[in-house]
Amino acid sequence: MEIVFLGTSAAMPTKYRNHPAIALLNEGEVILLDCGEGTQRQLIRAKVNYMHISRIFITHLHGDHFLGLPGLIQTMSFSGRDQPLEIFGPEGIDGLMENILSMGYYEKNFEIKVNEIEETVIAEGKNYEIEAFKVEHSVTAFGIFFREKKDRRFLRKKAEEFGIPPGPLYKKLQNGEPVEFNGKVITPEMVLGKPREGFKVLYTGDTRPLEEIVRRCRGAVLIHDSTFSGKLQRNAIEALHSTSIEAADTAKKGGAKALFLTHISPRYKNATPLLEEAREIFKNSFLSEDLMRVNLGEIVY
Amino acid sequence: MEIVFLGTSAAMPTKYRNHPAIALLNEGEVILLDCGEGTQRQLIRAKVNYMHISRIFITHLHGDHFLGLPGLIQTMSFSGRDQPLEIFGPEGIDGLMENILSMGYYEKNFEIKVNEIEETVIAEGKNYEIEAFKVEHSVTAFGIFFREKKDRRFLRKKAEEFGIPPGPLYKKLQNGEPVEFNGKVITPEMVLGKPREGFKVLYTGDTRPLEEIVRRCRGAVLIHDSTFSGKLQRNAIEALHSTSIEAADTAKKGGAKALFLTHISPRYKNATPLLEEAREIFKNSFLSEDLMRVNLGEIVY
Repeated sequence: MEIVFLGTSAAMPTKYRNHPAIALLNEGEVILLDCGEGTQRQLIRAKVNYMHISRIFITHLHGDHFLGLPGLIQTMSFSGRDQPLEIFGPEGIDGLMENILSMGYYEKNFEIKVNEIEETVIAEGKNYEIEAFKVEHSVTAFGIFFREKKDRRFLRKKAEEFGIPPGPLYKKLQNGEPVEFNGKVITPEMVLGKPREGFKVLYTGDTRPLEEIVRRCRGAVLIHDSTFSGKLQRNAIEALHSTSIEAADTAKKGGAKALFLTHISPRYKNATPLLEEAREIFKNSFLSEDLMRVNLGEIVY
Repeated sequence: MEIVFLGTSAAMPTKYRNHPAIALLNEGEVILLDCGEGTQRQLIRAKVNYMHISRIFITHLHGDHFLGLPGLIQTMSFSGRDQPLEIFGPEGIDGLMENILSMGYYEKNFEIKVNEIEETVIAEGKNYEIEAFKVEHSVTAFGIFFREKKDRRFLRKKAEEFGIPPGPLYKKLQNGEPVEFNGKVITPEMVLGKPREGFKVLYTGDTRPLEEIVRRCRGAVLIHDSTFSGKLQRNAIEALHSTSIEAADTAKKGGAKALFLTHISPRYKNATPLLEEAREIFKNSFLSEDLMRVNLGEIVY
């Protein structure tokens, strides 16, 4: 599984950082977290196939987080998409999507299912679930928690001890179905290993630091709002964003696997001071950069 | 005066070419021709101050030509703009702008004046006029013709012959007012040189080749739709675009100063064959590239 940072700036882009967007690459499926202006081009530059995007989560309705939607949808249409697309967003997403879909002349031949997130939402995938949970920003905003569901290991030895021959019965057990063999019922519990933890990615969107984030952190790759350096704590409080120090504190308290600082204010032409501040608190901190790819298996798990 | 190419691709962006947008830099004022997604970032990359944009012309309502508007307007708002902004576009621009201005949460503290172009429109500037004229595309579309109005030279020698002393009377004459001196009336005609031709920039937007363009070409820098190579003439006809050969024919027939090919299909990773085709017909042809700056005074006038 991979994380691709498509845009790592805050409200305004810079030469090096585009508006917010993150792609999660999961077994051929692409899940998009936020979709700032220019995301379609960042996808092309990052060689992520936009036709494989199945779900888009918009954390909140500030333009920098969603203004890439109309262009992306129109480009999907030009490219002949027929697969449905799901969009999740806060209150107002329905009206916004109506607006977006009515802009200009083009033909759309695929279905878009819009899901308004109320208090929370859980979206199920073939091997994952995604939870949206409320965070604290100047408008209704959500954090996004991706959890991989991992199959339990099949203990071949145990199956052999029960005398089950390799073949279709193994498959059934792996799929969680009990089988009958030699008059005995063998349940999956008897031949499967312990439940395994999968990858977890926790993206805060724009927010003040929150206990809700700390609680979900353990074992996760935390992608945290880090608009400001710790030196501008007051700005962070006023604008309802976080500092790199607050992001690192959260990662430490919650026991994250790794921390990626993102939503970097355009004032930081060189943002390494933010990274240095974070590393003093939480060693496994990284500064997100546009088009940066993180292979979860290789780097942090 | 300068032309800055901000985006030179067709409907979809590529790694090297963004969606259509062109900035005309005229004595501190920026006039934007089309505004594809990502234009605000291209302006930043090209070091063109987006706060100096006074007028935006949207040639037609295909998304690649206007989807940069919402983000640009929101960024102008964040940056504290209080100067009004004028937007010109074809039928439907009013409704589109209403949509655009209602997207997401932000505060706009400047006025936007939307002008729907019907058959044509002339916008006057302090030293220029801009004409929009109908072209031939799959939807209502306009070409944009920028003409600099140049002051007539003040013939100091003549003024001296009339015995007028240097000072406020010179100023009056330069400004086109007659003056009285020693009981004689001196008119501007008597002390001003011949009318001079200013810079002309003729941008076709998306179109088939047209007599309307040839007619306006003489002495102009022509920026012509060149979506396809001459080898794909049939595609150009079907999609109501032009080929590089048709663009060059137009420049030649009309007597343009220079031709810039733009709106290059993403299929051309290397578009020099389009340029070669054009140069065989019209020598002073150039291939537009993103962030390319053309100083009209130095290069072609």
